[in-house]
Amino acid sequence: MKSFRKVLWFELPERRQLINITGEVNQCLNESGIQEGLCLVNAMHITASVFINDDESGLHKDIETWLENLAPEKPYNRYHHNTYEDNADAHLKRTIMGREVVVAITGGKLDFGPWEQIFYGEFDGKRKKKVLVKIIGE
Amino acid sequence: MKSFRKVLWFELPERRQLINITGEVNQCLNESGIQEGLCLVNAMHITASVFINDDESGLHKDIETWLENLAPEKPYNRYHHNTYEDNADAHLKRTIMGREVVVAITGGKLDFGPWEQIFYGEFDGKRKKKVLVKIIGE
Amino acid sequence: MKSFRKVLWFELPERRQLINITGEVNQCLNESGIQEGLCLVNAMHITASVFINDDESGLHKDIETWLENLAPEKPYNRYHHNTYEDNADAHLKRTIMGREVVVAITGGKLDFGPWEQIFYGEFDGKRKKKVLVKIIGE
Repeated sequence: MKSFRKVLWFELPERRQLINITGEVNQCLNESGIQEGLCLVNAMHITASVFINDDESGLHKDIETWLENLAPEKPYNRYHHNTYEDNADAHLKRTIMGREVVVAITGGKLDFGPWEQIFYGEFDGKRKKKVLVKIIGE
Repeated sequence: MKSFRKVLWFELPERRQLINITGEVNQCLNESGIQEGLCLVNAMHITASVFINDDESGLHKDIETWLENLAPEKPYNRYHHNTYEDNADAHLKRTIMGREVVVAITGGKLDFGPWEQIFYGEFDGKRKKKVLVKIIGE
Repeated sequence: MKSFRKVLWFELPERRQLINITGEVNQCLNESGIQEGLCLVNAMHITASVFINDDESGLHKDIETWLENLAPEKPYNRYHHNTYEDNADAHLKRTIMGREVVVAITGGKLDFGPWEQIFYGEFDGKRKKKVLVKIIGE
């Protein structure tokens, strides 16, 4: 069994932002040389998400509106977590979107359906944060 | 390390429908011959879900009502994604339900608790769609 | 490839409770002797969750309030599932929080970011329930 590990760094200028990281994950897979296996991609921070969905800007606006409705940022004092912080909403938004994805590796490629793309979802940005890519297989 | 891959096809007559696919996944496991490992089952479409819950029709009605409340189908123009499509709600519903499950394989069987069953959740049906089963182990 | 399996048992005195199980999972990893691989941790019951977030009591209160707003426990008759049971809300709450996490194993350790901790989320407690830890790797 082979294994591969790489950390991707992001520092996004907005508090909330979605970016397509499929290219970076593909690059990891090429570096790994693994042909058959599983690829885990996870946010290493608990106010961020890695998820799979469509790379369509209208949908990304809808996700922002929808999450802000389900777990509003403000008023900050609506959350117990915000005594010394202001990011309780980011913990909840990431819970909806998920921490991680596991993707099959087949024939040396991410084994994706027609529109699947991997996104990093930042919900408390403006600072350096990490995503882990771990691939195991042969 | 052994690996196994199979695509399951579904064409459901309703826009939204939940179906139990535990039997199909068990069949894949038997074909694979893998005794110890991990089994990934994921929707290959971004308006569908694979999840684990109870096979109880009352609960499935509750899930439909609950998702429709959290991410209503209509009016279509409430979503930016729906300029050329009408399925923004399906992208959001699938986000709640999740894209994938990872199940342990132990002694050649899905290592499940008493009521765990695997479901395909369709949120934009009436067309052919795929689920991927990928098993790695020994 | 090596594999390791252990079941953790919990009997929580409250209907809903979040407990940090990172120590138990670390213990499993030490017992396994696995240095590189993937660790699956999943609830074996469909009214419970395993998830990764912050070990901060204010946030845990926020999660309780937030889930109770998204999927209220009562009135019991608001749910079709509750003809012979009263735990439909627990099925929905666990859907939001997720069934499982997959964690990378690197150098014999859980490959975590700065604040990641693994929690068992109980939404229908006061009885014995199980969590599965399955580790594969080398």
